[in-house]
Amino acid sequence: MLGNFTYHNPTKLYFGKGALQNLKEELPRYGKNVLLVYGGGSIRKNGIYDEVTAILHACGKNVAEDAGVMPNPTTEKLYEGTMLARRHSADLILAVGGGSVCDYAKALSVSVHCTEDPWKKYYLDGEEPTCEIVPVGCVLTMVGTGSEMNGGAVLTNPAQKLKIGHVFGSEVMPRFSILDPTYTYTVPKRQMVAGIYDAFNHIMEQYFSGTDDNVSDELSEALMKSLVKNSYAALADPTDYEARSNIMWAATWALNTLIAAGKTTDWEVHMLGQAVGAYTDATHGMTLSAVSLAYYRYILPYGVKKFRRFAVEVWHAADEGTDEEVAEAGLRAMEKWMRDLGLSMDLGSLGVKEEMLEGIADATLVMDGGYKVLGRGDILAILKSSL
Amino acid sequence: MLGNFTYHNPTKLYFGKGALQNLKEELPRYGKNVLLVYGGGSIRKNGIYDEVTAILHACGKNVAEDAGVMPNPTTEKLYEGTMLARRHSADLILAVGGGSVCDYAKALSVSVHCTEDPWKKYYLDGEEPTCEIVPVGCVLTMVGTGSEMNGGAVLTNPAQKLKIGHVFGSEVMPRFSILDPTYTYTVPKRQMVAGIYDAFNHIMEQYFSGTDDNVSDELSEALMKSLVKNSYAALADPTDYEARSNIMWAATWALNTLIAAGKTTDWEVHMLGQAVGAYTDATHGMTLSAVSLAYYRYILPYGVKKFRRFAVEVWHAADEGTDEEVAEAGLRAMEKWMRDLGLSMDLGSLGVKEEMLEGIADATLVMDGGYKVLGRGDILAILKSSL
Repeated sequence: MLGNFTYHNPTKLYFGKGALQNLKEELPRYGKNVLLVYGGGSIRKNGIYDEVTAILHACGKNVAEDAGVMPNPTTEKLYEGTMLARRHSADLILAVGGGSVCDYAKALSVSVHCTEDPWKKYYLDGEEPTCEIVPVGCVLTMVGTGSEMNGGAVLTNPAQKLKIGHVFGSEVMPRFSILDPTYTYTVPKRQMVAGIYDAFNHIMEQYFSGTDDNVSDELSEALMKSLVKNSYAALADPTDYEARSNIMWAATWALNTLIAAGKTTDWEVHMLGQAVGAYTDATHGMTLSAVSLAYYRYILPYGVKKFRRFAVEVWHAADEGTDEEVAEAGLRAMEKWMRDLGLSMDLGSLGVKEEMLEGIADATLVMDGGYKVLGRGDILAILKSSL
Repeated sequence: MLGNFTYHNPTKLYFGKGALQNLKEELPRYGKNVLLVYGGGSIRKNGIYDEVTAILHACGKNVAEDAGVMPNPTTEKLYEGTMLARRHSADLILAVGGGSVCDYAKALSVSVHCTEDPWKKYYLDGEEPTCEIVPVGCVLTMVGTGSEMNGGAVLTNPAQKLKIGHVFGSEVMPRFSILDPTYTYTVPKRQMVAGIYDAFNHIMEQYFSGTDDNVSDELSEALMKSLVKNSYAALADPTDYEARSNIMWAATWALNTLIAAGKTTDWEVHMLGQAVGAYTDATHGMTLSAVSLAYYRYILPYGVKKFRRFAVEVWHAADEGTDEEVAEAGLRAMEKWMRDLGLSMDLGSLGVKEEMLEGIADATLVMDGGYKVLGRGDILAILKSSL
């Protein structure tokens, strides 16, 4: 059953080889001062930095740079970027990078003109922006988070050991995003598969949650099937354009609010993964893969019919036997795929030690809307079997 | 393979029981003068007219009415509405009805301030608007066309016996659409099934076209499966909220540019159906159903692998035998479903006579981008076997 909802996603997407050329069309819509945001410098090596800055200068923009956005963007970095954006009177924040850079740019967009502490206001208190929002554009270089077409922005406070996401409304979504699949060719394999699993897990979070049996189920299965099929092709040849473009496009739709429409969602794997991330600074997708199987096996009894459907529709498991048998066959097929991709399958490999589990459990936000609201004991049990 | 594309769909959708209440939020964004556009008066009988006008008046709007929009909106009606909208200095065109009313509202939105003949400019010459565009909002009461979330607007010129669609860009898409599945409960069964088939055929047009094997294929199959499943439930009980809401939501995504992204499309069943519509004024969905099987059997040899996939994925045909055998099993299953719904299965039942076929063939636009570019002989052959 579809619950009531509002769907509004105005992000304009330019997709395909050479899509960066569309930046020339977009830039004149914004003022002169552009804050160029990027990460650790890989865009300087692969030439994307040069391409982007050439267009910015050809369009007569006054560019300031905010580099060094880390994989898990921190509150400290946000405060620093806010000062920079204010000094530069930024009219546009142009994020060039993956989900972290894009998330950071959105967090920045609601912080530049915010007179309160953005960490407290948006992340701890969950309030919505009341200030002017600086427009964000995005040139995507890594696939997975869906940040290019949604209002989400995850932020980490290392001192408080908290990693929290806020999903802002459509006014914070990127005004435009440029998606060139060839830009993802040089992403290291470990980052590529982590991104694929991040996208896949976004779909699972929404699929295994809330009321079932609506169009979202079929759409989710479609996206998951496409990701699985194309992941093998991308693994075999990272420059397989067809595979990389399908993965890029599926990942965008995995988390742009479409498949969540009319559903409640608890995002509990992300809550667990984010707590692990706050403790270890591990790659986001790997924190999800490490806790996924333990989590899904734990909640399986509360949604066994849906797990059966998942097994049959996504993994082509034989539709014979008890619900539990078919459901488990699906999870085994998923586990094989995850191992084939080379994902992190346990928390130990991410540097988590037994003595950290209590703290991680404390840092795990518990949401409702899923098949089971987890208690602290449940969380500890899942973390222990993930170790 | 995904070709390059731009995706931009800013329409805001309010979905669910009681969604009309959101009109109160939207109206203050526009000026005082509202042109209320509707059809033959069914909204006066079922109470929707009273609900909408109560909100318009409560919001202090100055309302003029443009009623009597026909199932196939004509150029004459457009000229009349244009004069009305100009006299009223319309700030917002509010369409309350099905796809015809919504299409008409969009055609009007680009005609009010147009100094040329809109039929010639947009429909015959295929030009884009250069004038100010009046914003359109939509309250949907019938499902099928997808007009609530796209830039399409089909117009009929009865004197020239031409029915032509123009797909305008995102600036012509409705600013907002209100989708309350309960508003579709009172639609007569014949209109309901015609709408379901219209939506289904939108997906087929995009699925059986252009380069294959991208995310669009899986998404299209998802939407088709959902439509088939829910059509039986809606047929059994027109007030089945789950079925009606799933059909409404799937129909929106069937034609809002998502599944066309990165593909070429020829829309040839619609070209045939529109020519039939120009000659008979028959219900749009029924003109499509009447020519579909003949058309798809005609082009099957040019895309047999995709027809096999369609048979297996959408109709659960056994994946055994030659491509042709499996493909034909799929079309037979589709035919059974179409007959179960009570769709028009031949042109004769729509009032087409043998002597009209030459004229209909002349009025059929031939597009490329599909599996086969049709010649006049092909079109006549398809029309003859549809008779």
